[in-house]
Amino acid sequence: MTVQAVMAETSAIEWITDPALVRQRSRDFFWYSPVLKRQLNGVTAEAVACPKDEAEVIAVMAACVKHQVPLTPRGAGTGNYGQAMPLKGGVVLDLMGLNRVVWVKPGVVRAQAGIKLIELDAITRKEVRGELRFHPSTKRTASLGGFIAGGSSGIGSCTYGKLREAGNILGLRVITMEATPRVLELRGAEIDKANHAYGTNGIITELEMPLAPAWDWIDVLAEFPDTIAAARFSEALVASDGIAKKMAGVVAPGVAQSYFKPFMQLVAPGKAAALVMVAEPFLDLLAPLLERFGGRQVYSVPTEQAETPLYEFTWNHTTLQALKVDRSLTYLQTLFPAPHHFELVAKMDALFGDEVMQHLEFVRLGGVVSCFGLQLVRYTTEERLREIIRIHEDAGAPIFNPHAFTLEEGGMKRIDSEQLDFKRVADPHGLLNPGKMIAWDDPDWTPERKRGFYLYGQADAPAVEEVLE
Amino acid sequence: MTVQAVMAETSAIEWITDPALVRQRSRDFFWYSPVLKRQLNGVTAEAVACPKDEAEVIAVMAACVKHQVPLTPRGAGTGNYGQAMPLKGGVVLDLMGLNRVVWVKPGVVRAQAGIKLIELDAITRKEVRGELRFHPSTKRTASLGGFIAGGSSGIGSCTYGKLREAGNILGLRVITMEATPRVLELRGAEIDKANHAYGTNGIITELEMPLAPAWDWIDVLAEFPDTIAAARFSEALVASDGIAKKMAGVVAPGVAQSYFKPFMQLVAPGKAAALVMVAEPFLDLLAPLLERFGGRQVYSVPTEQAETPLYEFTWNHTTLQALKVDRSLTYLQTLFPAPHHFELVAKMDALFGDEVMQHLEFVRLGGVVSCFGLQLVRYTTEERLREIIRIHEDAGAPIFNPHAFTLEEGGMKRIDSEQLDFKRVADPHGLLNPGKMIAWDDPDWTPERKRGFYLYGQADAPAVEEVLE
Ligand SMILES: Cc1cc2nc3c(=O)[nH]c(=O)nc-3n(C[C@H](O)[C@H](O)[C@H](O)COP(=O)(O)OP(=O)(O)OC[C@H]3O[C@@H](n4cnc5c(N)ncnc54)[C@H](O)[C@@H]3O)c2cc1C
Ligand SMILES: Cc1cc2nc3c(=O)[nH]c(=O)nc-3n(C[C@H](O)[C@H](O)[C@H](O)COP(=O)(O)OP(=O)(O)OC[C@H]3O[C@@H](n4cnc5c(N)ncnc54)[C@H](O)[C@@H]3O)c2cc1C
Repeated sequence: MTVQAVMAETSAIEWITDPALVRQRSRDFFWYSPVLKRQLNGVTAEAVACPKDEAEVIAVMAACVKHQVPLTPRGAGTGNYGQAMPLKGGVVLDLMGLNRVVWVKPGVVRAQAGIKLIELDAITRKEVRGELRFHPSTKRTASLGGFIAGGSSGIGSCTYGKLREAGNILGLRVITMEATPRVLELRGAEIDKANHAYGTNGIITELEMPLAPAWDWIDVLAEFPDTIAAARFSEALVASDGIAKKMAGVVAPGVAQSYFKPFMQLVAPGKAAALVMVAEPFLDLLAPLLERFGGRQVYSVPTEQAETPLYEFTWNHTTLQALKVDRSLTYLQTLFPAPHHFELVAKMDALFGDEVMQHLEFVRLGGVVSCFGLQLVRYTTEERLREIIRIHEDAGAPIFNPHAFTLEEGGMKRIDSEQLDFKRVADPHGLLNPGKMIAWDDPDWTPERKRGFYLYGQADAPAVEEVLE
Repeated sequence: MTVQAVMAETSAIEWITDPALVRQRSRDFFWYSPVLKRQLNGVTAEAVACPKDEAEVIAVMAACVKHQVPLTPRGAGTGNYGQAMPLKGGVVLDLMGLNRVVWVKPGVVRAQAGIKLIELDAITRKEVRGELRFHPSTKRTASLGGFIAGGSSGIGSCTYGKLREAGNILGLRVITMEATPRVLELRGAEIDKANHAYGTNGIITELEMPLAPAWDWIDVLAEFPDTIAAARFSEALVASDGIAKKMAGVVAPGVAQSYFKPFMQLVAPGKAAALVMVAEPFLDLLAPLLERFGGRQVYSVPTEQAETPLYEFTWNHTTLQALKVDRSLTYLQTLFPAPHHFELVAKMDALFGDEVMQHLEFVRLGGVVSCFGLQLVRYTTEERLREIIRIHEDAGAPIFNPHAFTLEEGGMKRIDSEQLDFKRVADPHGLLNPGKMIAWDDPDWTPERKRGFYLYGQADAPAVEEVLE
């Protein structure tokens, strides 16, 4: 009954103990993946702590260390790989109560981790006509801390790259998981220690973020003869440094028509579609680009006025929209490296036909316009899914496996020794989100090695509602 | 006495007729080039018109058409290729009297052509915390209209590319050279008709420009073991989409030490130097980059507080600083195309040694980080200069010849049929800045063909003071 002991010591703090509610807050969008769905469905914490400020966060952490209880931080729980799921039970630390802006000045904001991205953007837009450089397509629900700890890039990455690129995060205030928790401020290159670490090596309470100009954005949907034409258009747009833009996604013929409810009728049968966001003063400059690649604009509306913003049909929202129509679908995350990216895309199209439907996002990576795939996959078996992944990788298109819940198997494919070293300092007992950093349990791990893992909860637990809105 | 007739018809307008003053306002920085110096020294107008508003501009233009008098527009006269010099005499139209901001809103400003860049930036910074995306190193003197009509890129092009890239100019108000001048608004792709046309096909009276965030910029000077190390640093910085930056220039060992008065002592003997501008919140992120390339910061000061801003040691100012010390120097303008740019630079260094001293600026071109050279050349003869140019071009490094005063021979190396077509509409009599657009006089011109030209004025006229401040 160690969780009970933690709760007793921090009784001034709001706790959730109702098992159904606790189970709900122990989940995220892991069920996007049929593999994770099988593995993680039974996972649940024993209780959820809901601190209102940093002092309460520290109190819960100290109590958990004292009683050696696992602690898993959570923002809005919109991760796709079970990042926020407490594999070993214990306590979930819900950070949504820390939702204030600390300060804002032109170009930079400092805010608490639990603030919703949409609220943060509204405040910075009003105060200094700024907004986050980029946000996940879950902007309307996700938290700032969850984005940095669990996300990677998104709407705006066509201009600013990924979170991991220097300058996209200016500071992180991190609490260590020690008997007497320390407060650290990570800046500059040190930020990588806790960036995209799934909260395994410290709880982030505040973040300092650079701001981009808050333009009046326009959602534009255009149709093209085929995927490659739409892709060339999006690529050219992203290469246009003079045009202020925030998004350049592409879906293959059939995707918008079958899965994008508001746009089904707008995109002609057999056409591919490009989904872009461009700043209002530059809207007219799309016309010559569209013409060059045989495109035709079918929809254009200010993002703020859209019933559903177009960004909720891009990035991982594309998969969500498709899942609403067909529950048998899942997805991949793929880099199609230049200069042979279009050949690779065409090759995979020829190989897989309708089984793997192209969905591409054009971004900057290390200063280079790059083609990232979040393809929709008609799922049959885990074996076939592994085969599809292998075929992509053999062809030269690395997969960032969204069907794995550890840091190493997903993004990095290797042990991040900087994050491991920092975990030794910031979480010496290994209590933070245990099971997510393979390196902690097995410092000699390589991608070739199989793992066994232990999950808290019942594997045959009934399914919890999978939120599709 | 046709100029007299023009003046008589527009006597309400301020005219300059004093021959010494007229000659001064008929010149620019053409003398950077020993070739142009020989060719253009005698060039002068007969009178200079100084209109205060667009109506006066139109009045002068109409009168010149009526009397078939050549008219050459002029901003601050800081062009390097005699762009604003009246090859066929007639009238110089000084636009510095049109110096108002028409309106400004977040992200966009509309201003008259004669406004000084430094004044424009001060106003937009104050009003909407914006500034021009990029400016020539002559920001403190040059005009907005002169930059667009005669310039190409500059400080900020490491983020936004060249003026010619879509979105970097939003609108141009252009007056046609007709009996009854028309007022045209060029937008979108049409802007290319009058952008960088040396005023040969219309007088620009207003410009609509996108704005970038007005950061607090920091000038940073760093030393490196050699040119390539400094260049790799600058290239990596420009590839860092997360770091807000405005400049990334490089000079070979010896250049800063010999020619940069305020910095001579700061850069150790034998070291190359990088000159960068970075936004204040990102300053700390230079340290890891410097370390990676063996660099050491030797100077760092807010641009606003610098005695002389560091940008006045980059772009064409590097040449100016060198000319102050050694009048025998001149320069090149070179593209070192990726991916073999560093090999090319090293190859040229090996070939020319001290005769051609590297000066590189890293910019974006079409979305790609690119290496542009404005090398210093120890001038001996025109023949040798031609040979140096030829050797570069044969090696695969195209030269944008700064020793030619026509549009075609400088930047484009080919006839721009869009600009020629527009000249047929906007200057049917061929009176605007005559002699600068070869295509007008010889539509079949190719770079192989020699040209003869006629220059108004005395070839053996005494030199006018060459302003070195
Ligand atoms: C439909 C859909 C679309 C999506 N689109 C994108 C996208 O475009 N780009 C993208 O990158 N991601 C995307 N995601 C993934 C996810 O939504 C985002 O990464 C989101 O920002 C996560 O925020 P959250 O508040 O929901 O975090 P959570 O899911 O609650 O947490 C994410 C991770 O961060 C940890 N964490 C949370 N808060 C803290 C803290 N304060 N300190 C330390 N660790 C913490 C958690 O333990 C977990 O490991 C998408 C997901 C869905 C379901
Ligand atoms: C030291 C030095 C550094 C420089 N650095 C740069 C640099 O970094 N980047 C760069 O691009 N250039 C550079 N230049 C070139 C030049 O300074 C710039 O292009 C500058 O912007 C020109 O502005 P101006 O007002 O002096 O124009 P001017 O020299 O007066 O005119 C330039 C051209 O534009 C035409 N023109 C002027 N006004 C109008 C108008 N209203 N309508 C139509 N045509 C018009 C003129 O006829 C002429 O052909 C540099 C020059 C020097 C001497």
